[in-house]
Amino acid sequence: MSRRKSRFLRKPVEPFVVEPNGSANDVLTKMERVSFQGRNLAIARRIWERMLASDATIFLGIAGALSAGGMRLVIAHLIDQRYIDCLVSTGANLYHDLHETRGRRHFMATPGVDDAALAAERIDRVYDTLASEDEFCKNDEWIASFALKLERRAYTTRECLYKLGEHLWKETEHHGILTAAYRANIPVFCPAIADSSIGMGLSQARHRDAAAGQIDTIGDIIESANIVIRRPSTASIVLGGGTPKNFINQASVQAEFYDDRVSGHRFAIQIVTDVPHFGGASGSSLEEAQSWGKLSIESEKVTVQADVTVALPLLATALDSTARELASKRKRPDFDASGRQLVVNGQPLPEHRYQEA
Amino acid sequence: MSRRKSRFLRKPVEPFVVEPNGSANDVLTKMERVSFQGRNLAIARRIWERMLASDATIFLGIAGALSAGGMRLVIAHLIDQRYIDCLVSTGANLYHDLHETRGRRHFMATPGVDDAALAAERIDRVYDTLASEDEFCKNDEWIASFALKLERRAYTTRECLYKLGEHLWKETEHHGILTAAYRANIPVFCPAIADSSIGMGLSQARHRDAAAGQIDTIGDIIESANIVIRRPSTASIVLGGGTPKNFINQASVQAEFYDDRVSGHRFAIQIVTDVPHFGGASGSSLEEAQSWGKLSIESEKVTVQADVTVALPLLATALDSTARELASKRKRPDFDASGRQLVVNGQPLPEHRYQEA
Amino acid sequence: MSRRKSRFLRKPVEPFVVEPNGSANDVLTKMERVSFQGRNLAIARRIWERMLASDATIFLGIAGALSAGGMRLVIAHLIDQRYIDCLVSTGANLYHDLHETRGRRHFMATPGVDDAALAAERIDRVYDTLASEDEFCKNDEWIASFALKLERRAYTTRECLYKLGEHLWKETEHHGILTAAYRANIPVFCPAIADSSIGMGLSQARHRDAAAGQIDTIGDIIESANIVIRRPSTASIVLGGGTPKNFINQASVQAEFYDDRVSGHRFAIQIVTDVPHFGGASGSSLEEAQSWGKLSIESEKVTVQADVTVALPLLATALDSTARELASKRKRPDFDASGRQLVVNGQPLPEHRYQEA
Amino acid sequence: MSRRKSRFLRKPVEPFVVEPNGSANDVLTKMERVSFQGRNLAIARRIWERMLASDATIFLGIAGALSAGGMRLVIAHLIDQRYIDCLVSTGANLYHDLHETRGRRHFMATPGVDDAALAAERIDRVYDTLASEDEFCKNDEWIASFALKLERRAYTTRECLYKLGEHLWKETEHHGILTAAYRANIPVFCPAIADSSIGMGLSQARHRDAAAGQIDTIGDIIESANIVIRRPSTASIVLGGGTPKNFINQASVQAEFYDDRVSGHRFAIQIVTDVPHFGGASGSSLEEAQSWGKLSIESEKVTVQADVTVALPLLATALDSTARELASKRKRPDFDASGRQLVVNGQPLPEHRYQEA
Repeated sequence: MSRRKSRFLRKPVEPFVVEPNGSANDVLTKMERVSFQGRNLAIARRIWERMLASDATIFLGIAGALSAGGMRLVIAHLIDQRYIDCLVSTGANLYHDLHETRGRRHFMATPGVDDAALAAERIDRVYDTLASEDEFCKNDEWIASFALKLERRAYTTRECLYKLGEHLWKETEHHGILTAAYRANIPVFCPAIADSSIGMGLSQARHRDAAAGQIDTIGDIIESANIVIRRPSTASIVLGGGTPKNFINQASVQAEFYDDRVSGHRFAIQIVTDVPHFGGASGSSLEEAQSWGKLSIESEKVTVQADVTVALPLLATALDSTARELASKRKRPDFDASGRQLVVNGQPLPEHRYQEA
Repeated sequence: MSRRKSRFLRKPVEPFVVEPNGSANDVLTKMERVSFQGRNLAIARRIWERMLASDATIFLGIAGALSAGGMRLVIAHLIDQRYIDCLVSTGANLYHDLHETRGRRHFMATPGVDDAALAAERIDRVYDTLASEDEFCKNDEWIASFALKLERRAYTTRECLYKLGEHLWKETEHHGILTAAYRANIPVFCPAIADSSIGMGLSQARHRDAAAGQIDTIGDIIESANIVIRRPSTASIVLGGGTPKNFINQASVQAEFYDDRVSGHRFAIQIVTDVPHFGGASGSSLEEAQSWGKLSIESEKVTVQADVTVALPLLATALDSTARELASKRKRPDFDASGRQLVVNGQPLPEHRYQEA
Repeated sequence: MSRRKSRFLRKPVEPFVVEPNGSANDVLTKMERVSFQGRNLAIARRIWERMLASDATIFLGIAGALSAGGMRLVIAHLIDQRYIDCLVSTGANLYHDLHETRGRRHFMATPGVDDAALAAERIDRVYDTLASEDEFCKNDEWIASFALKLERRAYTTRECLYKLGEHLWKETEHHGILTAAYRANIPVFCPAIADSSIGMGLSQARHRDAAAGQIDTIGDIIESANIVIRRPSTASIVLGGGTPKNFINQASVQAEFYDDRVSGHRFAIQIVTDVPHFGGASGSSLEEAQSWGKLSIESEKVTVQADVTVALPLLATALDSTARELASKRKRPDFDASGRQLVVNGQPLPEHRYQEA
Repeated sequence: MSRRKSRFLRKPVEPFVVEPNGSANDVLTKMERVSFQGRNLAIARRIWERMLASDATIFLGIAGALSAGGMRLVIAHLIDQRYIDCLVSTGANLYHDLHETRGRRHFMATPGVDDAALAAERIDRVYDTLASEDEFCKNDEWIASFALKLERRAYTTRECLYKLGEHLWKETEHHGILTAAYRANIPVFCPAIADSSIGMGLSQARHRDAAAGQIDTIGDIIESANIVIRRPSTASIVLGGGTPKNFINQASVQAEFYDDRVSGHRFAIQIVTDVPHFGGASGSSLEEAQSWGKLSIESEKVTVQADVTVALPLLATALDSTARELASKRKRPDFDASGRQLVVNGQPLPEHRYQEA
């Protein structure tokens, strides 16, 4: 029996002590010394702070029904405060954001509600959340009308979504994800736009005019990799997995192909409910991402296995309590996302080409 | 297209707005209007408040490595403030509590640590948490010594654990689950005590004296059901599922067999990570529990699918911010758990018999 | 106590009896009378048979690392035997298929393998499966070369993937998903092609020629909905969730917008590991899909909560044991996927337009 | 770029090829070369064969509603053929087995069934499976009557369950888990018996006679560890996790405390749906178990993440197709479980004492 403490037994778990009227920041700070996913969530805030203290461009990926589920103004806040620099989203999150920015709502339901009754009333259900299908159809038409105002050429999703945010802001002056991104002039990518109601709206523009609704998602691949090539370092924050998770990682892999100074994201946070052992990308581990060069071997990283609607309100509130100054002083990239070519720190990225070293 | 809003579309989701320096209570209050598990966690606090405002005896079941994982003083706090009345635990949670109450610690590890290296140093791992096996062996001996001080007769786990809490308190005067329960004089049950290191310690007492370490878990069944029979109503809070979840439900089913005025718990909260669709009890739905009469058909109930280490710090802090007065004024049962027969409100429960109507 | 059996208690569970040398068909047939996900898997085969006996066009969606994980020749077999009619895939599944059709391999690893060592040797890991990054880079270049042979215009993924399958077949004469689809002349869609190495290969063609690598995913939306509009009925089989799941459902919703005789898929099978309660699309329930009109209210449907690599070998073998004749006699659609416009039963679908009733 | 293949890239994944009328054995054999959980399930059969070829005593732990869910005759078959030597079960699995052995049934339901309607008809639901509560109440009484026939002394669960199996067999001559174990004269432990309807039945015996229904689960701890001490080596097969998983591991840990020649199970298979990252025992990894000495560092082991009702029918059928001869020739322990002291290979284990080296 050893008399000296093992090197493995250095840092004790500190039991969480409940204090009434404690702040979210206090709660998350104390969670740094507990175990399991509570600890991981608390570590996520500290890694996020280190991202902000570094020179990294911070990508945020969002998947799952976060906008319908009440998280859209949290995402907008992360953009406003520049806790992130570039958004990669599923189409649904942007669509449900647009729905609310246009003054419509999602509604609370209970899981046991009868879907036949909902179908009869043309109400669409997302687990415990409802929306009017008629309002959705009007959104689709509104998107089609927007698309018919664009030039008859292919747009990257980044350029198209900038225009969409601009149009929304001018029409509504309401706060939301798309309008916040427009006003902050940061790029928003939507690699699977064809798999969403935004894509459906664009297709309805096409139905009216065969030359409308052209989207160049291959251009998005090049542009996102060029962001990585251009910047000294990058960071990845993933909420929910899905196509945004892979797209952010792919940007790093593709960038490395053209510029071998790139060697993976330097920081990574993911909050997911999927698990690694079925082999799917959403649940894949950050360690696995290192084998691909998606993350650097030295990256600081944490996976939090939790529903975003449980984890993000606490995380964002605690971050906002401690990181405002970090965010205001950070070396962040300066984007102009309004044109055909994305401009980074005053220099346009090449169009249709990877920037080579 | 209907011109009036559907009855299904009454209560909008309210997007969560981040406020720096917000309190845990504010965060959880705003989460009542989001979706998915965030909403469910927020609802849990309100149902807990209604439990406290009612005449219900509140059972708390704890499974999973909550004590090792930094949650033991949260549980102790729930006991101190009488947010709960009766604890049902796995053996491990009581054992890891005892370990820390005796001045030992659990330690933080990372998931990638090498188990062969840990085994070589006699360090035991629970996911990202470590402990010294030598210290565990000494706990076992300490438990054996305690057991050898007891009378040579069978004890219910409730009586045995009262004595264990008393012994711990007298020796350490340290705060923890067992010592809090002893000081609050509330019953603690451990139906699967033979499946834990507490059971192993008791077995080592038996090894030294063949008449030591006698535990009467069948007596626990009767006593727990008699608590339900005796009280006007009951409530169930389950963290993690496991044997405590079933034991608390079983008490209600068994009580109803002897007294048909009993008709299931009136309130139920469960925070679990297991899911219903594999048929296991840990993940079973609260709706399913209603078919059995474990919960009343009218019960107020919520399932939160989350890791307890993520959910409980926020939930307990928010509850403690709003429910102190409710807890202090509530119609709670008054227990004396020190003797062979559990005493409720001054009246001993029958021993070896169900109380019949 | 009722003396007659309840209407709820009509069909007993039949305990599974082990028989040595039993066939996969026997095993799955007996599983129809067990519970939980075993029963659901067994039901899936029977629903699939009913799809084949109907006039439905059967969509198959595949997500997760099925091709890398050894399932690609099962998918190819489902195409060969026309157990399905139209494939919707993630880019990764088509890419890993192409990798093997080109004669490269994926390799078996163990989960504990060191990712830094893999990164040093340029080996990419997908949970317990490995591949050479250098071989992947050559695939990307091969795809770029292929793309440079195409006309300088936008291709739907369906047209592009037909050409890719044709090119692969002519070069390799090897069996796989893409070559099977080419030879069977069935449409393959890849709505999130920009989020995959196929997209990366196309982007490398663009890098070499600014007019190359144009993909029209909005055209895919229209075409997939037109398939639904044209056919008497449709069915959905989803392996793994992801963008294919939503795309197949979206086709039905979009079709209904233009032709109100469409009222959702008539049959649905999904084998997924995600769960509904976090609100994400991959795990969403088939009941929820009914509220949207993605599935008809009368649809026959089953969700199997299982890893596809566990469930599909048994399911496909059992199906192939009982459904060959059904498949050969079925009223299946006859496609020509080789041109700009998809041809169904000899009639081209409109290009850039929804077919209106 | 390396010209020689990496040492990591030795064993290719072999795509599964569907063959109609294939046997379960063929299917599982081919699954050895796929990925993810399909591969793990296939490996489980091979590790089981190696257990049978060794001198190990094989423990099987069963949790989750396996008996209600149609798996009880698979478990009985594993006992009959001596693919296992010692069963550790939850009470529910033994209770639902007894229910069917007594001629009652479980019934198939659909998940959407209304629990209030079931409650009104006194029908109990386990996900998609139903049973009559009145029949359950009669089982409880039957168990109470059985218990009243026993001597008025404490029984280990092992001795009690032997008597229960004997009583069942004599009354019904029906096949099942308890009757198979009785006839094979192998030990059955139920460490959490107080958390089940068997415990409830025993408590009803106590209600009728204060000296009835005495169970000594602490004695079970000693006896199970003595089995490990007595045998040259041991193996663990766990279906579903729960208390049986821990009890089997605890036996090894406790044995090592008294006999340092013991160094953990030499083989381990677990088929579970829980995951490691929440810290609970059911989902804990086999690597973690090595840190505790529950498994030896050199053990052959595999975790299969799957529902038992999906995985076990295929696994047991394939095993039974290839391992009959191995099972018949194996060096298995010879038990007599009928008396106060368990007899192993003709030598009784010490009562109330650990066997010391």
